[in-house]
Amino acid sequence: MQVYIEPIGRLINEFSKLPGVGKKSAQRYAYKIISMTESDAKEFAAAILDVKRRVRYCKVCGNFTEEEVCDICKRRDGRTICVVKEPKDVIALEKLHEYKGVYHVLHGVIDPMAGVGPNDIRIRELLARVGEGGVEEVILATNPDVEGDATAMYIAKLVKPLGVKVTRLSRGIPVGSEIEYTDDVTLSRAFVERKEI
Amino acid sequence: MQVYIEPIGRLINEFSKLPGVGKKSAQRYAYKIISMTESDAKEFAAAILDVKRRVRYCKVCGNFTEEEVCDICKRRDGRTICVVKEPKDVIALEKLHEYKGVYHVLHGVIDPMAGVGPNDIRIRELLARVGEGGVEEVILATNPDVEGDATAMYIAKLVKPLGVKVTRLSRGIPVGSEIEYTDDVTLSRAFVERKEI
Repeated sequence: MQVYIEPIGRLINEFSKLPGVGKKSAQRYAYKIISMTESDAKEFAAAILDVKRRVRYCKVCGNFTEEEVCDICKRRDGRTICVVKEPKDVIALEKLHEYKGVYHVLHGVIDPMAGVGPNDIRIRELLARVGEGGVEEVILATNPDVEGDATAMYIAKLVKPLGVKVTRLSRGIPVGSEIEYTDDVTLSRAFVERKEI
Repeated sequence: MQVYIEPIGRLINEFSKLPGVGKKSAQRYAYKIISMTESDAKEFAAAILDVKRRVRYCKVCGNFTEEEVCDICKRRDGRTICVVKEPKDVIALEKLHEYKGVYHVLHGVIDPMAGVGPNDIRIRELLARVGEGGVEEVILATNPDVEGDATAMYIAKLVKPLGVKVTRLSRGIPVGSEIEYTDDVTLSRAFVERKEI
């Protein structure tokens, strides 16, 4: 005999597919669903179906949208394009309420070890956007790691010849942290990239 | 403008209702759903609806079942009833493949601070089962904490007069752990409840 009855075992299995969710958490989530009212469970299921039905990628920037072109592309200053790896990076930057330009989501970074080349991410689309003119600055906001840096360098080499200013988010000691506890790589980078005040 | 588009924000909100899931995890789960195939997402949603539609409580023991009476109640030795707080405790015990008797799920423990009295959990139903006869032993497997102990004591007082053997899972030093690192309460309990060998 199985430890779980079939519908519970199946739901636990579904929850286990979520990132970072083990059997124990999946079981807790499943029990929570069982203890929900029927209508709450229906809303949960509807939200899952709805997100698949309604969410697609903006044909300009590649970010999530419900329409053909997203609100950011439609309404904001197209002279600056901020290039990011994933949609969640757009969320992180939007939360600052500071940037007024548009985005370009690459949906990945160049990573030869993982078999991801320049043609596997949305670099071509970025070059097409810049090629259409009107773009003054491309901000490269890929992560400050090996793949993110390599991808930024690669894009910079292609975009600069088009006469567009290319910048990269600054690296350095995180605000509020202490020099003593900053890792060596970050600290030496902060030293090399020190700025006159 | 909202940071998330509506269907994504709503799904994140739904995932946030799961126990121990914060905004960050909920976002990761939602993005995972977006990246799933349509049919995988449909199966996920169906599993949620299915669990609500098909799972109910066994009218004898209170454990989860798809029928009126669960498989354990139908097939196993009814002379021993193991009393637990929640269905997940049944799972933990069943995983051992040792116990051959039946269960009784209280769906809670007596907890005056939380406003839970003896009538709010399935004690009446347990007494009715014992009252029907044929029960030789009631094993009290509520948690070894204040509420679990109080609930066990309460039940023991009602069941013993019915001429049934009442036992409680032993407390002591966990197998494989070290005396040096055992907490004081557990260690003193192990001392008091020491057994002749």
